[in-house]
Amino acid sequence: MFIMKIDPWKSIEIKDYNKAMKEFGIQSINPLIKKLPKKHHYFTRNIVFGHKSLQPVLEAVKKKKPFVMMTGLMPSGKFHFGHKIIADLMIYFQEIGAECYIAVADIESYLTRNVPLEKARKVAIDEYLLNYIALGLNSEKTHFYFQSSGSKSYMNLSKFVAKKTTFNELKAIYGDLTPEKIISALTQVADILHPQLKEFGGPKPVVVPVGLDQLPHINLTRDIASRFKLNYNFILPSATFNKMLPGLKGGKMSSSEPENAVFLTDSPENVEKKIKKYAFSGGQPTIKEHKEKGGNPDIDVSYQWLTFLEEDDKKLKNIYEDYKSGKLLSSELKEILIKKINSFLKGHQEKMKKAVNSFDKFMYKDV
Amino acid sequence: MFIMKIDPWKSIEIKDYNKAMKEFGIQSINPLIKKLPKKHHYFTRNIVFGHKSLQPVLEAVKKKKPFVMMTGLMPSGKFHFGHKIIADLMIYFQEIGAECYIAVADIESYLTRNVPLEKARKVAIDEYLLNYIALGLNSEKTHFYFQSSGSKSYMNLSKFVAKKTTFNELKAIYGDLTPEKIISALTQVADILHPQLKEFGGPKPVVVPVGLDQLPHINLTRDIASRFKLNYNFILPSATFNKMLPGLKGGKMSSSEPENAVFLTDSPENVEKKIKKYAFSGGQPTIKEHKEKGGNPDIDVSYQWLTFLEEDDKKLKNIYEDYKSGKLLSSELKEILIKKINSFLKGHQEKMKKAVNSFDKFMYKDV
Repeated sequence: MFIMKIDPWKSIEIKDYNKAMKEFGIQSINPLIKKLPKKHHYFTRNIVFGHKSLQPVLEAVKKKKPFVMMTGLMPSGKFHFGHKIIADLMIYFQEIGAECYIAVADIESYLTRNVPLEKARKVAIDEYLLNYIALGLNSEKTHFYFQSSGSKSYMNLSKFVAKKTTFNELKAIYGDLTPEKIISALTQVADILHPQLKEFGGPKPVVVPVGLDQLPHINLTRDIASRFKLNYNFILPSATFNKMLPGLKGGKMSSSEPENAVFLTDSPENVEKKIKKYAFSGGQPTIKEHKEKGGNPDIDVSYQWLTFLEEDDKKLKNIYEDYKSGKLLSSELKEILIKKINSFLKGHQEKMKKAVNSFDKFMYKDV
Repeated sequence: MFIMKIDPWKSIEIKDYNKAMKEFGIQSINPLIKKLPKKHHYFTRNIVFGHKSLQPVLEAVKKKKPFVMMTGLMPSGKFHFGHKIIADLMIYFQEIGAECYIAVADIESYLTRNVPLEKARKVAIDEYLLNYIALGLNSEKTHFYFQSSGSKSYMNLSKFVAKKTTFNELKAIYGDLTPEKIISALTQVADILHPQLKEFGGPKPVVVPVGLDQLPHINLTRDIASRFKLNYNFILPSATFNKMLPGLKGGKMSSSEPENAVFLTDSPENVEKKIKKYAFSGGQPTIKEHKEKGGNPDIDVSYQWLTFLEEDDKKLKNIYEDYKSGKLLSSELKEILIKKINSFLKGHQEKMKKAVNSFDKFMYKDV
């Protein structure tokens, strides 16, 4: 299934990433991988499969000039392994020199999902920020902020951008418009552009790591930035596009479907139970048949998860081949994933406990 | 001419105020005049001809409880006698106990008229604030603020209100919508409602003195306030509706037509020249004919201006009768107006010079 129209308000599942790239003017990441100062298997395995205008960012990395990694989070539900992908990318960009801007979309979640600001704040800190810190986010180079308490220059920008778009343009992207959708979209545009305001150090490259569903937002932001050139001299923001970690049963992972997701706060027993019970298998119905015909790693969710989680290319290749040949059983493949996850979670959950004491350091300093 | 549809983006001239009141659900001010603790000829002469829900304000006046006078100004052009009417009403409400909130609509003027923020700030202070102070605005009970630098609670409210309106509702009021019209309208709603936020002392009556062209904004704000009742417990804002001072040649006075307006910075010679040359006369073509048939004060702009400017009812009545009978010539009527204006401007312009030293006191304290 390939969806031609991207609706940023709905989740999508894109199976044909090459076609999507061609269709939507996204470029393959492959020619740029050699320019990355530090390899990450998300890039080498094409989990990050495409980009839009990443060159200014790579140029800044090379010349050790300032650049920004910008992302937003919707403060609803528990932090799961799907969220971890973007967090890993945030931290990756920080490690190669980026200053991180992380917007808690509390205005958007209030307007479009009716989440009270206080609840959004609690979820953002307890579920997201603590996980980010435990995953290695560095407080020195992080602006973690709430849309409802950004600086005045940011808040004003979220209104000024209205001047550089039209109703028809927004309608083409968001379908039926409501006042709250317009406010949410314009606030998001300001989230991405405001690190380039003079109060934040002026124009600089900004990269936004996103899934393909966010492409319309990225395009709108780039178009608005280009129309503001004379006033602000914005550099058009860049984006990387990554595949999504599939839910255990397939489809999109969501906090509201706990049996389809693994949370970073799950117990080892829970992880084991969920994967054994729900992870969609590419194996054969019987052990005998599996040993004869072999499994299909390309549709096996446990294997797909390992492409995200197992950093060692050689180990991953062996798993792929052994599963495909039938040597590795589905139950054994699941055991490998369970072990991998639980080994990671043991250290991670320890780090989360410590993170509680340091989250103040990450909070936004008003400009 | 009576315009049935009120378009808040265009100027209108309403000749039949009684019909307008009936049509638009505005109530006559007359039954309430006796409740005003201090008479002002704007009320007794029906220059303020109607109101919407003024009772909570009068109740607060009576019980000496807090209430607010809220107004906004569009920082474009020079301050003229048309602007003075609203300023007089602001000061009147302040004198009977109101705290004054004055919004400089710099975001709106940037979005809809392309006025840079710095220019808006200069015009707002040099042309508006200094005149307000010279007219008697008291710094103790005034919040003079810019839409671009209001408090966070105010800025957030200007986004939250999007949740309580619909696209169709806005379209019915503003016609063809643009993103900047939506942002401007919602910001204006927040201007009127924010004095009731807990950061500003909580719910209280608010009166907005406006011309009839602002009725749709008032209705929208009241509707949104009522839908927010549970969250904020807003008291629905009240409004008074006043007639506009006509331009010298008739029609609406505007800073962009200097020959149709008298500015509060005009020299005595300039005032004399403008009125003699441009003020539309209700007199007869010749002195002889005028003495025989008499003039028509009801269409005479000089006389109309005196209904705003001459506080003494008896003097005004005499002028009316003498003009109507033909005893008072058009040139003599104009002389009365010129003298009245120049006598006022002499003192006023002195006060404006002194006001320069005190405008800091009026500036908004961030909440």
